[in-house]
Amino acid sequence: MVPSQSKYPIAALLLLFSVFIGSCRCQYQPTWESIDSRPLPEWYDQAKFGIFVHWGVFSVPSFGSEWFWWYWKNQKLTPYVDFMRQNYPPDFQYADFAPQFTAEFFNAKQWTEIFAASGAKYVVLTTKHHEGFTLWGSKYSWNWNAVDVGPQRDLVGEVADAIRANSALRLGLYHSLFEWFHPLFLQDAANVFKTREFPMTKSLPELYEIVNKYQPEVLWSDGDGNAPDTYWNSTGFLAWLYNESPVRKTVVTNDRWGLNSMCKHGGYYTCTDRYNPGHLLNHKWENCMTIDQKSWGYRRNAELKDYLTIEQLVATLVETVSCGGNLLMNVGPTHDGRIAPIFEERLRQMGQWLSVNGEAIYNTSAWRAQNDTIFPGVWYTWKPETKDIYAVFLQWPTKGTVNLNVPVVFNNTEVVLLGYAQPLKWIALKTGLTVYLPTLSVSQMPCFWAWTLKLTGAN
Amino acid sequence: MVPSQSKYPIAALLLLFSVFIGSCRCQYQPTWESIDSRPLPEWYDQAKFGIFVHWGVFSVPSFGSEWFWWYWKNQKLTPYVDFMRQNYPPDFQYADFAPQFTAEFFNAKQWTEIFAASGAKYVVLTTKHHEGFTLWGSKYSWNWNAVDVGPQRDLVGEVADAIRANSALRLGLYHSLFEWFHPLFLQDAANVFKTREFPMTKSLPELYEIVNKYQPEVLWSDGDGNAPDTYWNSTGFLAWLYNESPVRKTVVTNDRWGLNSMCKHGGYYTCTDRYNPGHLLNHKWENCMTIDQKSWGYRRNAELKDYLTIEQLVATLVETVSCGGNLLMNVGPTHDGRIAPIFEERLRQMGQWLSVNGEAIYNTSAWRAQNDTIFPGVWYTWKPETKDIYAVFLQWPTKGTVNLNVPVVFNNTEVVLLGYAQPLKWIALKTGLTVYLPTLSVSQMPCFWAWTLKLTGAN
Amino acid sequence: MVPSQSKYPIAALLLLFSVFIGSCRCQYQPTWESIDSRPLPEWYDQAKFGIFVHWGVFSVPSFGSEWFWWYWKNQKLTPYVDFMRQNYPPDFQYADFAPQFTAEFFNAKQWTEIFAASGAKYVVLTTKHHEGFTLWGSKYSWNWNAVDVGPQRDLVGEVADAIRANSALRLGLYHSLFEWFHPLFLQDAANVFKTREFPMTKSLPELYEIVNKYQPEVLWSDGDGNAPDTYWNSTGFLAWLYNESPVRKTVVTNDRWGLNSMCKHGGYYTCTDRYNPGHLLNHKWENCMTIDQKSWGYRRNAELKDYLTIEQLVATLVETVSCGGNLLMNVGPTHDGRIAPIFEERLRQMGQWLSVNGEAIYNTSAWRAQNDTIFPGVWYTWKPETKDIYAVFLQWPTKGTVNLNVPVVFNNTEVVLLGYAQPLKWIALKTGLTVYLPTLSVSQMPCFWAWTLKLTGAN
Amino acid sequence: MVPSQSKYPIAALLLLFSVFIGSCRCQYQPTWESIDSRPLPEWYDQAKFGIFVHWGVFSVPSFGSEWFWWYWKNQKLTPYVDFMRQNYPPDFQYADFAPQFTAEFFNAKQWTEIFAASGAKYVVLTTKHHEGFTLWGSKYSWNWNAVDVGPQRDLVGEVADAIRANSALRLGLYHSLFEWFHPLFLQDAANVFKTREFPMTKSLPELYEIVNKYQPEVLWSDGDGNAPDTYWNSTGFLAWLYNESPVRKTVVTNDRWGLNSMCKHGGYYTCTDRYNPGHLLNHKWENCMTIDQKSWGYRRNAELKDYLTIEQLVATLVETVSCGGNLLMNVGPTHDGRIAPIFEERLRQMGQWLSVNGEAIYNTSAWRAQNDTIFPGVWYTWKPETKDIYAVFLQWPTKGTVNLNVPVVFNNTEVVLLGYAQPLKWIALKTGLTVYLPTLSVSQMPCFWAWTLKLTGAN
Repeated sequence: MVPSQSKYPIAALLLLFSVFIGSCRCQYQPTWESIDSRPLPEWYDQAKFGIFVHWGVFSVPSFGSEWFWWYWKNQKLTPYVDFMRQNYPPDFQYADFAPQFTAEFFNAKQWTEIFAASGAKYVVLTTKHHEGFTLWGSKYSWNWNAVDVGPQRDLVGEVADAIRANSALRLGLYHSLFEWFHPLFLQDAANVFKTREFPMTKSLPELYEIVNKYQPEVLWSDGDGNAPDTYWNSTGFLAWLYNESPVRKTVVTNDRWGLNSMCKHGGYYTCTDRYNPGHLLNHKWENCMTIDQKSWGYRRNAELKDYLTIEQLVATLVETVSCGGNLLMNVGPTHDGRIAPIFEERLRQMGQWLSVNGEAIYNTSAWRAQNDTIFPGVWYTWKPETKDIYAVFLQWPTKGTVNLNVPVVFNNTEVVLLGYAQPLKWIALKTGLTVYLPTLSVSQMPCFWAWTLKLTGAN
Repeated sequence: MVPSQSKYPIAALLLLFSVFIGSCRCQYQPTWESIDSRPLPEWYDQAKFGIFVHWGVFSVPSFGSEWFWWYWKNQKLTPYVDFMRQNYPPDFQYADFAPQFTAEFFNAKQWTEIFAASGAKYVVLTTKHHEGFTLWGSKYSWNWNAVDVGPQRDLVGEVADAIRANSALRLGLYHSLFEWFHPLFLQDAANVFKTREFPMTKSLPELYEIVNKYQPEVLWSDGDGNAPDTYWNSTGFLAWLYNESPVRKTVVTNDRWGLNSMCKHGGYYTCTDRYNPGHLLNHKWENCMTIDQKSWGYRRNAELKDYLTIEQLVATLVETVSCGGNLLMNVGPTHDGRIAPIFEERLRQMGQWLSVNGEAIYNTSAWRAQNDTIFPGVWYTWKPETKDIYAVFLQWPTKGTVNLNVPVVFNNTEVVLLGYAQPLKWIALKTGLTVYLPTLSVSQMPCFWAWTLKLTGAN
Repeated sequence: MVPSQSKYPIAALLLLFSVFIGSCRCQYQPTWESIDSRPLPEWYDQAKFGIFVHWGVFSVPSFGSEWFWWYWKNQKLTPYVDFMRQNYPPDFQYADFAPQFTAEFFNAKQWTEIFAASGAKYVVLTTKHHEGFTLWGSKYSWNWNAVDVGPQRDLVGEVADAIRANSALRLGLYHSLFEWFHPLFLQDAANVFKTREFPMTKSLPELYEIVNKYQPEVLWSDGDGNAPDTYWNSTGFLAWLYNESPVRKTVVTNDRWGLNSMCKHGGYYTCTDRYNPGHLLNHKWENCMTIDQKSWGYRRNAELKDYLTIEQLVATLVETVSCGGNLLMNVGPTHDGRIAPIFEERLRQMGQWLSVNGEAIYNTSAWRAQNDTIFPGVWYTWKPETKDIYAVFLQWPTKGTVNLNVPVVFNNTEVVLLGYAQPLKWIALKTGLTVYLPTLSVSQMPCFWAWTLKLTGAN
Repeated sequence: MVPSQSKYPIAALLLLFSVFIGSCRCQYQPTWESIDSRPLPEWYDQAKFGIFVHWGVFSVPSFGSEWFWWYWKNQKLTPYVDFMRQNYPPDFQYADFAPQFTAEFFNAKQWTEIFAASGAKYVVLTTKHHEGFTLWGSKYSWNWNAVDVGPQRDLVGEVADAIRANSALRLGLYHSLFEWFHPLFLQDAANVFKTREFPMTKSLPELYEIVNKYQPEVLWSDGDGNAPDTYWNSTGFLAWLYNESPVRKTVVTNDRWGLNSMCKHGGYYTCTDRYNPGHLLNHKWENCMTIDQKSWGYRRNAELKDYLTIEQLVATLVETVSCGGNLLMNVGPTHDGRIAPIFEERLRQMGQWLSVNGEAIYNTSAWRAQNDTIFPGVWYTWKPETKDIYAVFLQWPTKGTVNLNVPVVFNNTEVVLLGYAQPLKWIALKTGLTVYLPTLSVSQMPCFWAWTLKLTGAN
């Protein structure tokens, strides 16, 4: 028998935690009931639109998916196995990609300028994906982090500083609980998670470290590895995060904190990747999705048709916000630190659109109806304080009129097209109204891709 | 004295050439007078639009410019010297980039599909830039070509086969006469071009080789290295090309065949890079230009703002064609063989525009006026056989009418907007006419970025 | 405050240890007094001669020393800094050497054949040097071990299996307690060793792992990092090793178990590197030294004159054994797994010499005198059971006689030269004797480099 | 038809050569009869012992043989194909080894010190082996030479300068006529050597270049590629070398100048690799052989038993010189510029032996008998001017006497052992004599491995 196997006596540790927790004036207990009772800080629902950034060693092969390692070594999928066989020496390992993660063109200020230009209000960076490579110099991930190998820079720190220097943006950090191939995680998994060497010596110390060091206002947890939240000590950690951490007042978290916690516990719900229910939910949620439809990490082999068009992206934003969600739109930087021009173009186009239509997005709430059952392609948002209703339509009608079935209009109801000065003519229908759009040539359009009617004095 | 220095006795070779030339029924003599007298094969003027492709070892650093090697080692420009110092071992040489020219994603059929979708009628590939690296397996460039190192594929052959398999496209090959650092060229240059070891053993054998092997219909010569055409034996080669070569009937060449030959001798004129005179020339010319404004080769550090917008590209095409030129629009593939999505997007957008407006571009001639002095932003083209006049305008007028000053109209003159079915209403002015554009919403527009009025029965 | 800092409550762990220790019938307590009381297993003193093998990532640069990393990054010694600056990219890190640790020529059976041919009785391999890279797939050193990167083989396992398959050899494992740059060690050091994250999560788990997995009969500890044995929990570990481990009956350890333990506590003494006191010690000791005088790890820039000659090596063995020590002679394999021919030559020469003179080395004891005060260059050993005395002389005397001052002879004393059949003539002196060597031409010599006189019936 | 194919009109060139040759006062004509009539410069026969150095890109894989490329790519031998498959990416080419030819430890002065210490009188370096990679910056081998890639140093120049600075040594240069994979050579070969593009543009210019630039006193030609000497223009080149070159007075060449010229034409004969006929030849010859029995280039996978022992090397020298040959003993430096210690040891041992026995080697001639038919293991040399006879014996006889059957002795004949002061006792036999060797202990021996009896006043 080896004493080392019992060197993290769980009972003793829990005891200590209790003692520790007892010493703080703590609002939240380490139970889901208590954790789930915390109201979501308001800024998040008002922000509506964030940028997700997937960056890591997977950005080096930048082939297929950020799950490259898993698909290659665990699933042994043909495209990945072939790619390696055809392009690398037989003994090449995933870790050998790390020195090629060079980031020589990485400029956090330049990134931040682009993110801000997109109209996003927060940015979530992968500090550590399932590969386990930390983009900061974690003490618990020696020689497998961006300071020791590859970029030899504190990438998280550089992004955090640049984001914080921009008053329009808030910092979010993504963190994967499990790591596909970490030997201590695999050992714990083999023990059916009855041992907990991995969370005690790796994931928990790192979570505390990034919160204390970088003070994120979004903590985007992922990757439960089929282990329950008790294995990860998620409620314990969240209680600390909400009670004690330096960001306890403003931090927002998601729902990926253990097997079966998704769409059920934590902060806002993510439910699935690219979650977009198309109807209102009674809990704040986020639609995290990708501009490159097939991958979160940068894919060299992505073609133009793989990237969503700006029309599709605007439509997704509108639908998401209308149904009460936030949109977290993902870009994948390259191994050398660039945001490829096609991503930059999409981001700046989003910003162009939001510069005209932002009023219908930011700080809005879901209205009593989300879309118009009669006239498809119209999505509603609402401002409780002004009671203004926003109807965003995705196609400019050939016939020059837009029918809205849901709003109840009155004589003093006023309708304007955002970006167009004069009020529009409208007539009441049995239910709803018909709005007469102005006759605008292409050079007179306030914007493209989608347009907003703002109804004042309607219900 | 070393006998080797006299091993290419020029007198003897000239004698042999005479004998050889005497044995063919040759229309053209190796003199500029004779070479310049050859009519340009008609297809070229009709094609109007081609794609230029700059690819080579410079695509590996893909930093700054395809003149990377020169700027680094000869000019010692700071950005290049710093880039190498910061990212490579001290002894890293330009040739060490070659093994990294991997082209693993290169697919000539895919490229060809994109090129054809752009509406281009020919494609000109750099078979060898000033770096001297040949994209085919030249016998005269052992270990410094794409078959021996790097891709280990006949890149020229793959492109040639794919282009030829597409009936819409013709093959063009770019070839640099001089090579920055070839020791035999440097030796000849040091001898004030009184020795000719380099053209005799390198550039001429290679020119014959690529013409015979790949049968290009455009031979795009470049890089005289400040040596006169007599050094390069340009007239001798062109006489062979026009009299004897397998492409003698259809091949087109440009004007870069020796010091002072540019804009004066050879086939069509290129005059300068990005040549766009803005007025009619009395000799066929070509505007070779780049989508990335700062480089011909791929630049990783290019930002979105460095790429011309589709509006700028369409305007350049229209202006160029109107003034009698062809447009040769450049893209720079990556070291791994991809056409980046931002390039693909621009190319497909060009094709979208040409699918509506191609009638005003292909097979047209310069009209008696190129642009309209009264109404700026209008460019004319003309079809001699139908006498139809095309007026392309770059901004959609807010007031809904287009004034054309130059055309002489008659009662039976008919005006249509390409892509719109009904003839347009127009009224004659003292000189010229006013055309009433249809009232079209954004969803009814036949195209964007520029529009064409076709005048039938006008002069 | 961060709870993670108290996650290894020492008190609780000590309690657990006590419980655990209580459950075994334990001969040894975790105190130096108890540990030091254990008699050294006999095989070790009888073996006399072992091979030390220093192999690791330092074998890749193989420049200067196995302390390469430290000299380069911490001491910033000019030769190391210059070597890196001149030969590697500016961002090259020590960890980037690991993929080049290829071991493609490594063949543990071939090594073992050479080691056995040297006459050595045990082999000590560096499982982990101060660089922290483990030559086995340690769970506690993910991505920084020979199974994950570099060789991608269990080097310790392959050596262990091959050594064990040879009945003449025993397996020894070297293990460094501290690691120069491990962030948790550095953190503990900054805390003046009041925290113990590093030993609890790294060094102790690994020690248990290698003992259980590879069952070494020598455990060669090194590198206390200026921390006391209490920090390393050395007595606790040694109590387990001696009481419970699978090798508890035969395992031998040395004395490097914490600050000030060297030459004082543990198993045999090593005192310093290349320890060779020249006189008898009252505690078993070992002279670990190197064939390449300047380095333990392979040095590409070693010249012939840096390697000890076979005469020097034989003399060192003789002197060491005569004074009661064992000789641990080091070789440094290359990054690709070879034992360079110059090392192989020295090892086989040692074996040649021992094949004649082994009787005077193996299973001997220190005699009452170590060397002869009158006749320098003679070293004595002794076999208690036979009372035979061995006098090894390092120069063949020109005059043909050897004087020995210390032995007391009798009429029936017999003197032979090992490797030569007939007894030698001798005459008694006032004290000691003169031995008449046979007249042997070079082709008749039983061996070279040193010769042994065996005295039977003397005191 | 392509004019480039006739751009080296042979007739015209021969004419020019004649004219050129006519302008010098030329002793030698470009015919074998004339070339073969040149007496060998005396220094060469007096030198007896040289060092051959095989260094090139093959020193990078340093596996199997310096014919690595050929065995791998042309012969597709299993060990080579497997080695590449197991250790390199699938597209790795031989040329990709060149950047790894780093030579960072190369120090020509250090090499020269070792070569001089061996007792050699000349050093022959491979300036270009069959791989075609030139160790100097050949203008005719751009990007495939040591100045453009890899070491980025003029290796030939550095060796030449260092050798010349040592008055004991002369410089020799090895040059391969053909190159396995040069496309122009392969084209000429496919044309059954009726075209001569390769020698005219590659091998001949390079031969002139190295002779003019480095002025070697040995020009060691190799690699006829099965082409006749007329293809290589060997007699033309040699006429220039002997009549006009800067080394015309002292240069020595060998016999490998075209198909069937070996052992028949040129300078001294080499006949085969490792040629050692065991009897006298009536033409000066050279035994080129290797210390590593299996390869000329460095082999990482060579074991101790693959290296000839010093006894074998001394015996080979003695036998070779006795039969009228010179010994050219090969070492293979490593890719990083080192002479491995095992080679250094053998070289210094040779020097030790020659420091005692050089009198029997240097400046000697073959005697009337080469070895002794009665007493095997004795080889004779002779000094014509003194008429001293040297008898070298390879085993020290146990019985203490050496019988020599061939010499005719007289009363005043004197016999000495080189390195031993006193004359030896001898007695005449019916034919020959018996020499009584002194009784020497191992510490009194003048040398080891072989010994020389010098007979003065004998015939």
